[in-house]
Parts: sequence; C-alpha cells; structure tokens
Amino acid sequence: MIVTALIERKRDGGRLTDAEWRALVMAYAANAVPDYQMAAMLMAAFERGLDRGETAALTEAMLASGATLARDGSAAKRVDKHSTGGVGDKVSLVLAPLVASLGVAVPMISGRGLGHTGGTLDKLEAIPGFRTALTLAEARDQIATLGCALLGQTEEIAPADRKMYALRDATATVDSIPLIAASIMSKKLAESLSGLVLDIKRGSGSFLPELERGTELARTMIALGASHGCEVVALLTAMDRPLGRACGVALETEEAILALKGEGPTDLMTVTYALGAEMLVMGGVAKDADAARRQMEIAISTGKAAAKFAEIIEAQDGNPAVVDDPAILPQAEECELYEAPRRGFVAQIEPRAVGRGITALGGGRTRLGDAIDASVGFVITAKPGDWVERGEPLATIFAADRAGVDAGRAALDAAIEIADEAEPPLPLISHRVTARGVEIVE
Amino acid sequence: MIVTALIERKRDGGRLTDAEWRALVMAYAANAVPDYQMAAMLMAAFERGLDRGETAALTEAMLASGATLARDGSAAKRVDKHSTGGVGDKVSLVLAPLVASLGVAVPMISGRGLGHTGGTLDKLEAIPGFRTALTLAEARDQIATLGCALLGQTEEIAPADRKMYALRDATATVDSIPLIAASIMSKKLAESLSGLVLDIKRGSGSFLPELERGTELARTMIALGASHGCEVVALLTAMDRPLGRACGVALETEEAILALKGEGPTDLMTVTYALGAEMLVMGGVAKDADAARRQMEIAISTGKAAAKFAEIIEAQDGNPAVVDDPAILPQAEECELYEAPRRGFVAQIEPRAVGRGITALGGGRTRLGDAIDASVGFVITAKPGDWVERGEPLATIFAADRAGVDAGRAALDAAIEIADEAEPPLPLISHRVTARGVEIVE
Repeated sequence: MIVTALIERKRDGGRLTDAEWRALVMAYAANAVPDYQMAAMLMAAFERGLDRGETAALTEAMLASGATLARDGSAAKRVDKHSTGGVGDKVSLVLAPLVASLGVAVPMISGRGLGHTGGTLDKLEAIPGFRTALTLAEARDQIATLGCALLGQTEEIAPADRKMYALRDATATVDSIPLIAASIMSKKLAESLSGLVLDIKRGSGSFLPELERGTELARTMIALGASHGCEVVALLTAMDRPLGRACGVALETEEAILALKGEGPTDLMTVTYALGAEMLVMGGVAKDADAARRQMEIAISTGKAAAKFAEIIEAQDGNPAVVDDPAILPQAEECELYEAPRRGFVAQIEPRAVGRGITALGGGRTRLGDAIDASVGFVITAKPGDWVERGEPLATIFAADRAGVDAGRAALDAAIEIADEAEPPLPLISHRVTARGVEIVE
Repeated sequence: MIVTALIERKRDGGRLTDAEWRALVMAYAANAVPDYQMAAMLMAAFERGLDRGETAALTEAMLASGATLARDGSAAKRVDKHSTGGVGDKVSLVLAPLVASLGVAVPMISGRGLGHTGGTLDKLEAIPGFRTALTLAEARDQIATLGCALLGQTEEIAPADRKMYALRDATATVDSIPLIAASIMSKKLAESLSGLVLDIKRGSGSFLPELERGTELARTMIALGASHGCEVVALLTAMDRPLGRACGVALETEEAILALKGEGPTDLMTVTYALGAEMLVMGGVAKDADAARRQMEIAISTGKAAAKFAEIIEAQDGNPAVVDDPAILPQAEECELYEAPRRGFVAQIEPRAVGRGITALGGGRTRLGDAIDASVGFVITAKPGDWVERGEPLATIFAADRAGVDAGRAALDAAIEIADEAEPPLPLISHRVTARGVEIVE
C-alpha cells in the first residue's frame, strides 16, 4: 500500500476500494501510517466525500479494529438510541430504563459532554457512586441479567475510530456526513444490535442545523445498518431551543428521574415516547407505536420504569436511593430566579448560548478531560412562543457562587430573546426516516 | 491563533489574512503546530486554492523563516534561472558559467535529482572534489569575486519551506500551483535577485504537462517576484522528449562541458541561448536578445565561458582539469549500442520512461538520501520525427554491469516508439510569459 497514492486518488475525487480502506485503517490503528498522512486523507475525504460503498468499508474497518459486545444467550433483542446531541437532552436516561423495563435489551454506550452539548456519562456520574467504566464482559453480564447497561466507550471498541476521531477534532474534519456516520456506526454496530433509533437534531443548537444534511446522515446510517442486519430508524427533532426544562448535569439527572416517575415536561416526554415506540416495535415487544406508547405509560405509572433505573444504578455501584430522593444529587450553593426584562413574546431560547452559559458556570467543558461542576445550570420554564410579563420568572439559575449567578444571568440575557412578535419554533418531531424514505410527521 | 479555525476557513473555501499565514508558518517552523494540522491545511489549500495575496503572504512567511544571501558590494546585477525539471536537462551547468562570464552575477542554489528528473547538484558532484555545500557567507564571497556560486540548499534558507515541502511530499499535496510557486519563490527571493528566468517544461515528461497550468505557474511567480523588485520571465519549453542527447548524471556533466566549448547539441543550445538572453538583458549587459546571443556565442568560441566554469570548479574544490579532459568523470564499466528494432519514424522518446531507466540502472533515486551511480545512463542520438532503418543505432547504454545493460535496453524499449507515422513533437520553445502577458514564440 502506497499511502500517498491513496491520498492522491481521493484528493482528485476518486474512490478507494474496500481492501484499501481496510489496509489504511489497520495500518493507522497500528501506528504504521503517521497522523499527518491520515490528516491529509481525512481532509481530502471531507472535500471530495465518500460514496456509500466507501463509507461502509471505512465503518467495517473501524469496527474490525476492536472487540464487540457479544450477544448473550437471552432471547431479548438488542436496540439502542443515538442522538446527535443537544442542550437539555436527557432522553437517554429516561429511555434506557423505560425500554429495558419492557423487555428490550439496551446496551447503551454513551459519551461525555463537550462544547455546548451535555453528555450522558456525566449525568449518570452525578449519581453518588455510579460507575460508567464497565468492561465489555461486565456490560454483557448486566445486559443478560437486567436488560440494560449504561457505560462509556471502552478502549476495546473501535480503537481506530477513537484515534481517527481525535485527529478529526484537531484538523477541522469532523463535520463530514460519511465520516460522522462511519464513526457512529462503527461503535453502535459493535453493540451487536438488532435495531437502532437515531435522534437527529435540527436547528441552531444542533451539529447539522440543515434539514437536508440531517436526512442525508439518516439515510447513510440506515444503509450502513442494513448491511449488518441492524434496522435503523431516524427521527428529526427540534434543537432550536433546549429540550425539557433542566439544562446542566445534575439538574438533568433529576429531571430524568422525575420523567421516569410521570412528572416529566411535555416536550421531553413526547420525544422520549416517540423514540421509545420505535425501539419497542423494533425490539418485537409492541405491535405498533400506539401499543408501545400505552406500554410505556403503564411502565411509568406503575413505577416499573423507575424501579428498573434503580436496579441499574445499584448494579453499577450507584446509590439507588436517588430515584426516591433526587436531593442526594449535587446541589448548587446559589439559586436565583431569572425574570423577564420586558413584556412580550419569548422569541428565542438559543441552545448554544444556554450551553455556553453552563460551561461559564463550570458545568461544561471545552476539552475532554476537564473537570466539571455537576451542580450548576439552569431550569428554564419559559418556552418559545410564550407571552410573558415584565418581571415574570422565566428560569432559575443554579451556581456555585455569586459570580456564577452573574455569569448565568449574562448567559440567559444572551440566550433568551423577548420581542413583540415570535416566529413559530420548529416542530418538535418533524420527520421520520426509514429504509423506505422520509415521512413528514405532523 | 486557533489553528483548527484557520483550517476550517480554508476547508470551506475562505482565505487567511497575511498575518494568519505568517503566524501559522512561524508556529509550524517552530514545531508549535503539529504536522497533522499542517497536513490538513495543505490538503485544504490544495483543494480550495490560494488567491494571489495568500500566495504572496505564504511566500513571504517562508522567506522570513530563514536567512538571505545578502547583496555584496559589486555593481553586477544578480540573475538566476529555475527549471521545473526534466530528463536530460543540463542547462544550468552551461548557463551559469556562460552568463557569469559576461558580467551578470549568478547565485545558483540547486537541488538533487528525485524520481524521473535529474538534479544539478548530483551533476556537479560528479566532478572529482566538487563541493556544493557552501555556506551563505562562502557563496556571497565567491559571487563577489567570480560572479557565480553553484550550491545546494542550505539549512539557513527558508527552513519553513523545507519542512513544508517534506510534508507535502508525504501527503500528496505537491502539485498545487500556489504551493509550488510559493515554495520556489521563497528560496529564489532569498538570493536577493534582480531577475529570474523560469524554464517551465511542458509535455509528458514534465511536472505540469498542461500548457494552461504552466502559464498559470508563470503568472503566479511573475506576480510574486514583482512585489520584491525581482523581474521574472518564463519560457515554456518542450519536455515531451529528453533535452540534448545525454541522460544520466556524469554523461550530462560531460555534455554540458562540451556545450560550453561549442559542441553542444542543437536543442540544448537553443534552450540555453534563449534563457541566457533573458538573463543578460535582465542583468543589464545586453540591450536585446540578438545582442545577448552574439555575446554568448563569442564567450563560447573564445573559451571564456569554459574558463569561467573551470574557475568556479576550482573555487569549489573540484578538479578543473575536467573541462579539458571530461574522461576524469566517472566512467561506466559497460557500454553498448541500442539499435532500432524496426524501420520507421521515431514516434516518441518518452522522458519519464528514460528517467525510470536511469533509476533502474542505479543512476537516479526514488527518495532523497539514496546513493546514486553517476556513471550510468543513456546517450540518445535519435530525435522524435527521425526516419530510422532497422538496426540503426539510436542510443548508447552506459551501465555498471551486464544486468544493467539489459535493464537499460528494456527501458529504451519502453521509452522509444517507432511507428509508420509520427506526430510532430512540441515546439522546443513555445511561449514566453512576462508581466505583460503570454507571447507565442514561433
């Protein structure tokens, strides 16, 4: 393999064969191809694209670079959810125990918060004692017994992807649909899934704000799943405002627990139920979305979903008492209302500005490895389109000290726009993409 | 400076400011920007291009990363020649002493052979004792006394370019006109030139085979020179066949010495005189090309040009006796005629195949640092368009052993095509490009 010849071909708009992608990725994972050559290849791939076959070959090569979460003996189908990330998005914490409580196995491997978006692992670790660093063997055993494990990426899964992702992050080659799709699917396929539901965010706070790019990502991932016997369905959901009310690590954990007990905000529940219905149907335990929705409502109202979360927490060394008493989560020192500076319509609650506000409070990170303060953040009760009077409370700021309150106030000043008119926000769930095509969800 | 933000901007087709290019190049030269980030930037620049202002800023930054060959007290103007490289191109060895003998200072910094193209330094070092590794101070002194120094690139000149060129070579980002132009000019401008003549090769054996890309390179370099008070003129010359007859290190040195004594092949002399005329006019010692040509013919016929070469050789520790007795150059063990395998027209003598043949004989290198055998190569007396009879000698193969003779024969079989018809070859000198535009040379 002459690496420069492969780079040159991609640079000029050509394609690499399956064998060439495999050889390149293997050599890179083995440190036999230097970072600078892979960086040039990734930029050429960014500029020229990869076709479906190349994307599949790249995914396959990254998947093959590591281990997989082998199937256990249980009859339950394995289904997972992946979100492209947003602000206030604590759906995973609700969905995994909810779906697992209904007999579908959920092997959920999640990430940490970075930039303006939060991370499931951070929210789980806000629970005293909770251990996300499971080995694949531990995760497999727990899925066999409890139907669910909530863990972080391990060194064992797709090491080539991990190395390439770090390089992409340093070389401005992240925002490429084939590279994103290959990266996500190389890890998800390592979970040996029967089905995967994607929550692809749209709008200003999302990774791919444009609808067309979101549907293209969905189609690419559906095709990648199909060749591995993994059904993929994508919902396009709104990220032009935060999801739910809580924004901040432990605040979101608390809101997720409340949601599992039937007290979740409407928008969070709508998205959770829609994604959960896909999972239950793919998992073969509900005949259609309506039946699935009824099952989920029952699992919540009977306490079965919350009980499943408590079991998982206990199995992963966390304190399950948090389910009954969320006050054992980290609590902020300072807490202050944020009131409307004028009367008018809430014209916008900009998620990126909210996310940056969480980071300014110490509750987010700009680089992996930074420590975070789980207790801080916002609970934003106002929604775009609401009419508010001057002085009416719109949110609560949770901070470590007075300076944090001031920073939080400045962030909300930037994030929340009140005006004489307001455009309607994006529909909460706008499109559903399956192997058969794109449907508009009304 | 956030490097990923600069990469991202170039990736999306934007431009970097002068200050950004300067900061990026300085940081890269100081090892503060890693190779993988520069590789991504170079690939983005390859795909998206650099505008004139960016190319100038990059050139300036690379020039400023090192030292320059300061002007000496002499009144002579400094003029140099640069060729984009080809097979059989020994023009520099003839031109530098010839022009210097007529009172124009020639500070010629050259490179080594790589791939199918030969290098001036290798040809000079075929002369016993010749030392090309002059310091800038030595070169400056020698230019002041002899009007010419023939040296290799030193660590002192444009170190950022040297580092970036090595990276481009490993990342398939060499063939970009702005990057090529900036690389050449950052080194040539370090010679403190008044004028520069470019020999831009066209045709199958050249770096940029297409006419349009050759003229674009010329225009880019003319603009870069103009902003540093360096007049640049380019001639586009043929490289669809080797230049002259000798192809191979010492064989070319010998042909250059013969040319300085009036016995050069016609095509070599035509190109040498055309380039030399530009240099003498730019150097202010001839009023026009016709006058320059007469001066050069006299310098050769009177022995003044050859005597200047002997002086330079002696000053650089070489054996000046080579000028009178080229037999002291390395001589090949084996020497055998190559005869026409059939009657017909010589339809093609493909330079890349000849160049690969030299490498197969041990007289070229595929990577810098490889040792070469200076004695081997070909003297090809046939020219495209010639009518030849079966068995008529077309070339002589010079090799180290019998296996080399066989390899040389195979290379010439591949390089030389004899057919019932022949297309006319490219005009030897087809275009002249100046700040005023492109002229067709008849």
